[in-house]
Amino acid sequence: MTSNKKLKIAIIGGGSSYTPEIVEGFIRHYAELPIGELWLVDIEQGKHKLDIVGELAKRMVAKSGLPIDVHLTLDRRAAIKDADFVSTQMRVGLLEARKWDEHIPNLHGVIGQETTGPGGMMKALRTIPVLLDICKDIEELAPNAWLLNFTNPAGMVTEAISRHSKVKSVGLCNAPIGLHKWLMNKYQVENRRIYTEFVGLNHLHWVTRIEIDGDDKLAELLDKREEYSGKNVPATEWDPEFLRTLGGFPSYYLKYFYMPDAMLEEQLSSLKAGGTRAEVVKRVEDELFELYKDPNLEEKPKQLEQRGGAYYSEAAVNLMVSLHNDKRDIQTLNVPNGRVLDFLPEDAAIEVNCVVTGQGPLPLPVTKVPENAKGLIAAVKTYERLTIEAAITGDRGIALQALAAHPLVPSVRVAKLLLEEMLEKNRPYLPRFF
Amino acid sequence: MTSNKKLKIAIIGGGSSYTPEIVEGFIRHYAELPIGELWLVDIEQGKHKLDIVGELAKRMVAKSGLPIDVHLTLDRRAAIKDADFVSTQMRVGLLEARKWDEHIPNLHGVIGQETTGPGGMMKALRTIPVLLDICKDIEELAPNAWLLNFTNPAGMVTEAISRHSKVKSVGLCNAPIGLHKWLMNKYQVENRRIYTEFVGLNHLHWVTRIEIDGDDKLAELLDKREEYSGKNVPATEWDPEFLRTLGGFPSYYLKYFYMPDAMLEEQLSSLKAGGTRAEVVKRVEDELFELYKDPNLEEKPKQLEQRGGAYYSEAAVNLMVSLHNDKRDIQTLNVPNGRVLDFLPEDAAIEVNCVVTGQGPLPLPVTKVPENAKGLIAAVKTYERLTIEAAITGDRGIALQALAAHPLVPSVRVAKLLLEEMLEKNRPYLPRFF
Amino acid sequence: MTSNKKLKIAIIGGGSSYTPEIVEGFIRHYAELPIGELWLVDIEQGKHKLDIVGELAKRMVAKSGLPIDVHLTLDRRAAIKDADFVSTQMRVGLLEARKWDEHIPNLHGVIGQETTGPGGMMKALRTIPVLLDICKDIEELAPNAWLLNFTNPAGMVTEAISRHSKVKSVGLCNAPIGLHKWLMNKYQVENRRIYTEFVGLNHLHWVTRIEIDGDDKLAELLDKREEYSGKNVPATEWDPEFLRTLGGFPSYYLKYFYMPDAMLEEQLSSLKAGGTRAEVVKRVEDELFELYKDPNLEEKPKQLEQRGGAYYSEAAVNLMVSLHNDKRDIQTLNVPNGRVLDFLPEDAAIEVNCVVTGQGPLPLPVTKVPENAKGLIAAVKTYERLTIEAAITGDRGIALQALAAHPLVPSVRVAKLLLEEMLEKNRPYLPRFF
Amino acid sequence: MTSNKKLKIAIIGGGSSYTPEIVEGFIRHYAELPIGELWLVDIEQGKHKLDIVGELAKRMVAKSGLPIDVHLTLDRRAAIKDADFVSTQMRVGLLEARKWDEHIPNLHGVIGQETTGPGGMMKALRTIPVLLDICKDIEELAPNAWLLNFTNPAGMVTEAISRHSKVKSVGLCNAPIGLHKWLMNKYQVENRRIYTEFVGLNHLHWVTRIEIDGDDKLAELLDKREEYSGKNVPATEWDPEFLRTLGGFPSYYLKYFYMPDAMLEEQLSSLKAGGTRAEVVKRVEDELFELYKDPNLEEKPKQLEQRGGAYYSEAAVNLMVSLHNDKRDIQTLNVPNGRVLDFLPEDAAIEVNCVVTGQGPLPLPVTKVPENAKGLIAAVKTYERLTIEAAITGDRGIALQALAAHPLVPSVRVAKLLLEEMLEKNRPYLPRFF
Repeated sequence: MTSNKKLKIAIIGGGSSYTPEIVEGFIRHYAELPIGELWLVDIEQGKHKLDIVGELAKRMVAKSGLPIDVHLTLDRRAAIKDADFVSTQMRVGLLEARKWDEHIPNLHGVIGQETTGPGGMMKALRTIPVLLDICKDIEELAPNAWLLNFTNPAGMVTEAISRHSKVKSVGLCNAPIGLHKWLMNKYQVENRRIYTEFVGLNHLHWVTRIEIDGDDKLAELLDKREEYSGKNVPATEWDPEFLRTLGGFPSYYLKYFYMPDAMLEEQLSSLKAGGTRAEVVKRVEDELFELYKDPNLEEKPKQLEQRGGAYYSEAAVNLMVSLHNDKRDIQTLNVPNGRVLDFLPEDAAIEVNCVVTGQGPLPLPVTKVPENAKGLIAAVKTYERLTIEAAITGDRGIALQALAAHPLVPSVRVAKLLLEEMLEKNRPYLPRFF
Repeated sequence: MTSNKKLKIAIIGGGSSYTPEIVEGFIRHYAELPIGELWLVDIEQGKHKLDIVGELAKRMVAKSGLPIDVHLTLDRRAAIKDADFVSTQMRVGLLEARKWDEHIPNLHGVIGQETTGPGGMMKALRTIPVLLDICKDIEELAPNAWLLNFTNPAGMVTEAISRHSKVKSVGLCNAPIGLHKWLMNKYQVENRRIYTEFVGLNHLHWVTRIEIDGDDKLAELLDKREEYSGKNVPATEWDPEFLRTLGGFPSYYLKYFYMPDAMLEEQLSSLKAGGTRAEVVKRVEDELFELYKDPNLEEKPKQLEQRGGAYYSEAAVNLMVSLHNDKRDIQTLNVPNGRVLDFLPEDAAIEVNCVVTGQGPLPLPVTKVPENAKGLIAAVKTYERLTIEAAITGDRGIALQALAAHPLVPSVRVAKLLLEEMLEKNRPYLPRFF
Repeated sequence: MTSNKKLKIAIIGGGSSYTPEIVEGFIRHYAELPIGELWLVDIEQGKHKLDIVGELAKRMVAKSGLPIDVHLTLDRRAAIKDADFVSTQMRVGLLEARKWDEHIPNLHGVIGQETTGPGGMMKALRTIPVLLDICKDIEELAPNAWLLNFTNPAGMVTEAISRHSKVKSVGLCNAPIGLHKWLMNKYQVENRRIYTEFVGLNHLHWVTRIEIDGDDKLAELLDKREEYSGKNVPATEWDPEFLRTLGGFPSYYLKYFYMPDAMLEEQLSSLKAGGTRAEVVKRVEDELFELYKDPNLEEKPKQLEQRGGAYYSEAAVNLMVSLHNDKRDIQTLNVPNGRVLDFLPEDAAIEVNCVVTGQGPLPLPVTKVPENAKGLIAAVKTYERLTIEAAITGDRGIALQALAAHPLVPSVRVAKLLLEEMLEKNRPYLPRFF
Repeated sequence: MTSNKKLKIAIIGGGSSYTPEIVEGFIRHYAELPIGELWLVDIEQGKHKLDIVGELAKRMVAKSGLPIDVHLTLDRRAAIKDADFVSTQMRVGLLEARKWDEHIPNLHGVIGQETTGPGGMMKALRTIPVLLDICKDIEELAPNAWLLNFTNPAGMVTEAISRHSKVKSVGLCNAPIGLHKWLMNKYQVENRRIYTEFVGLNHLHWVTRIEIDGDDKLAELLDKREEYSGKNVPATEWDPEFLRTLGGFPSYYLKYFYMPDAMLEEQLSSLKAGGTRAEVVKRVEDELFELYKDPNLEEKPKQLEQRGGAYYSEAAVNLMVSLHNDKRDIQTLNVPNGRVLDFLPEDAAIEVNCVVTGQGPLPLPVTKVPENAKGLIAAVKTYERLTIEAAITGDRGIALQALAAHPLVPSVRVAKLLLEEMLEKNRPYLPRFF
């Protein structure tokens, strides 16, 4: 891969508010990732945003002086053709759909969240068929391309792709890199002096080893209940006794599973106050696009960091750099389990440390798996696998089994109510179900 | 094993109201299971009941004319010494403890059940150390004996024994045999014409194959929502659509997991009306012992069948007969997983079809495992393994992780409340925790 | 399966000298296996033998008075159509090909044997494509039929079928039943009092448990070097010290692997004296067919028992009876490994105890696997899998890897010599290689 | 581990002729591996050589000007106490024993080799108990030390240590680094641009991926039959057709398995000419020690590179540097299999790519395993496991099974002859067998 050929990159969902961040990353890492063409592609409904953010991207590149051609297009196949990397950052159904992913469960007393539970399931049902269509294009037009997926629910989408297409793909999340940034700041050390080991699934992981210069810091971190959290998850406090015996530093998404009562209360009061997270994000996005329009803006605006998905682009650029340069560094990625977790199938996507070689990521064995994590991981994986099957077949019976299997859904009765209401609401995006 | 030597059998918890049933079984199967000595052993507090039921046992044997010596004793070691089979049917803490296993969770809005959830956990914590003590006696005094355990929670107790002692043991439940009886009656066929395949754990199984003369009856049974149920689980109705896609005929205990809302409501209204199941059982038992006292009674009274544990003794006698005669028939038992379920550890107890040879049961492979069952089985197994560890170590942190991991416990907050209150209530039986 | 419908059975290779034995078995077991039609089918070159043995079969049936229609045909598809059981006992290339399977390796100082080594490989290359063609007919014309394969090399042929067709099939050998007959005679007990456990592959097994009435006889049998042997393997004596630590009663075919020097010497002197086993068999067969011609003969002649494949037919009839009646008895069969042997792939055929249910055989777990057996089993399985691949693809490179991987082939150099010479000799039967 | 503390290193077998090479490595890598104390320890019989080579080591350090204290001692426990790294490079029985490891098999027409076959087995039997004694000292005196083992047969010794002691250990071989050196020279690239994937055991590996800058070079290398070989294995040529379908670049030790006829011939003619490899090495060593004695020599003499173990010390120093600095680079090491090869036990030592972290090496998954390699790997592993058991128990029965299981031993008869003669010859070093 290290030939002199300039690279072609296609960003599907290029009209996203995140785009300036990834463009900034490409500019910064140009020496290791010599991009010749950057294609930003979006759908008709996203054309307005694509134009705004695309022009900003062009101004950023121009300012850098680098020989990167930025293309804005609605023609996905033209963007994909002969690409070296394809990245997806899209939202089928837009923020409106996310709103219902959050609202409807809440109205039935269930956690509303766009990456897990009933909301996550709807997002998976909407997204997986679209991604598999993109994969067909890649198989045909760019069979050697790497697909970097950060479209949520990233775990399920990644698994659907690896099981149902031939595309070389990796799923990505900003949480692992975010934890490292937080540790770097907390301990005032460079990243290379930190070692962490992730066990579990996307948005459902335990960090079972945290070492600084080889010294174990896990017990200390669990004991002090210090916490790294994302913008999108409320900072409810962990029970100290519980945390001490948990055996791993928990993903902040685990709060939904361990303290659903408090989290639901929080969601319901937010809902009353100013709406769900979807509505907050909507306002932030609107403000961002106002900024992007400014023809004098030639760099990523600071406000983008408030957006919630910090480091997503850094994660993506790091991965591209390592794949392109056979860098063999360790990154935490979503890939097929292989033989890493002995209680999951080999083709199940997991979130795990990988060595990134030029031929792709190789997952590292996990050295510790807390007993208490296994059941929850397996339960959520069952929901995920049934959801993937439902997304592909459009079978309501399987969808019902999937939802009933989710630990946050209290009973079959509630599963059925939610399923009917949510499928109906998502009708435009779920042709296979109607 | 088929020498002419007469067998010695020890029943621990011999003062149980079930004893007349097993005695009846021994009398009926004497030709295949030639018992010379039957020892009924109980603890000091159970002496009164042991005397009553033991005298009935003697009258039953006398009536049969068989040369079986019936011994009543409080000396467990004397009963175990050189036994060929040891059977346990005991209740540490008596029905009073069961009452709290059911009441306390209910008061916190959680299912109260003596074999799963918080109640099952307490019962496991009380029972496992006692059973392991019995195992030490067996290792020393009757190392070749088979231990037949039907003390609930039978799955956890069986796993604790197989992982922490050298005793040859098998766990037993009446549900599989009960299902067969129900099918025999429904289809008017002999048992040998029925084939069923069980997948899962004790009180958490799916029957994935039901064939009569080789014809598949599963779809028909799931479609008609016909149901075999135990005396001790309310007959709330399954959702028909859900049932059709479940992939297996569900254990009636699965209602606690799939319809906890309805089941809890049922428990709360029972609680208001006449008390929990423990209190019902207490009344039935009192009546039975009144009957047993009658010196003219020489056989098992009909009323015993109302008791809820129908066929327990039949299961036990069947197993002893097959072990003794190397009968190689198929029975559904609780044994170590080995390599049957690929998502559970090899030493995890599962409920599975076994061929019973003279050297012990050999588990048969399962031919179908519904995807939707896997997560729930794994989740409950995690709770079980942590509970076993807590029972042995007396570690409250592990107990908290166990309870928080149970699918019926809604949050860590509730787990903590329940744990503290229930440990305190069980203090006399949980020396390792205090 | 236990309906009143009369069964249809097709015997492919019906002109075999073994046919009278299986016909005798059908007559004897008619009550459990009510056959309406028995089709004996053979190829054009076998018509003469088919006529002779087929007429004998008709006389045998007539004498029995049973309402079985015997059909003789060269039309394989007519024979297979709607059959309940299909059995194969054929020899692609006839005894002439077997002769070269034995001769050519001998001439290069290598064991010549029709079921393993270079000879077994050639037989597999000739046979597998033909069997897979038969399977296509069965898939089309009798999709519910069971295929009982005893065409050697039975392990490879069975694996090829289960991996490359949808036919329900089982591989069979007479060695397990032969061992039981020998034990019955030696200990003067009925078969049901004997328990044996087989570990390994077809013609490469260790019997790791031999119990009479539950008493372990293995050490005694290994210590006395008593031996059950087949007609077709010379009775060279085992080294007593080696045998004692072997951990299992060895298949007599294991002599080829443990004492190839003595076995080769024996083969070479036989070769000098009267020819290979193929030539002996040829003479026996000629004599048998002379007998069969006698129009007064109405039963299986005693001389057939000298033929070497004693009990083959008993094995086949036993299996049909158990499948038809959901008998759930234990038989030692060749089936896919599943999760029985943890060092072989799940789809590898192994020889293992199975419970024969109406839905097919379920393999039992093995309780002991001698460490020393594992490497040899794995080595031969590698040869087998490569041979199957070569048979299907006709790839000489893979065939060379297969032969070089066989433990009886001393070097790549010899493998290459043998391969070239033997492929050439088998040219008429190996269209895929030319 | 990256504190400022100076490191203590103990070299067991410090009187080896290899010592100047490792000392050179320590000097060169001092910045990354700041050694304070270097202890060279040997046994009484090795004192003379220890003095000679130890004085050279001191002169080398003095010339470097680095503050490393070099200690020469016969007190193993003093050397080990509080060491950070312990390295072993010893030869129980000295070259005299090696001579018989090579001679005796040759005299019976069997390959004589000190790392596999009968010779390797004898070396394992002599060495394993001594290494396990050293491990007891390390467990007691330096429980945090890493043990780097390059004592042959490195695979078996490493497995014995990891299964029978608590010492943190890694096995090392020079072949992987040697291959990289050869590729660097051949393709004129830096090491970091080469990617190789090793599959198998020590001295029994296939290199299934060889990439330069991500370009696959394997087919090209196999097609041209180019070869990297060690000094100690004759350069007999591979069969081109065989090599092309082998699926991996073979270890030069594989010649013993694939062309034992040619290799034996070569050994027998060497034996006639000038003796075995042991005798060649003896002469080289004598010459080296003559050089070492020169008080003006202050550096590693060029002639050492002829010795055969080139790069051993580089491998050792690389590993120490990566462990000490949590370097996370990929090295090919001998470690427990874990779940890498699905056909071997988890505790079996394999040779595999590892990421070397500060907490130890983590094995990478293998992406390709040639079918043809599996059987041979499994066969040799069976021999290895039985040999380890024999070394620990001194059980001749197990030793016989081990030897009979080795692919290079033609029959049980020959195994028995060899075993008796070789055990007798090794009597002084095998107290457990007598």
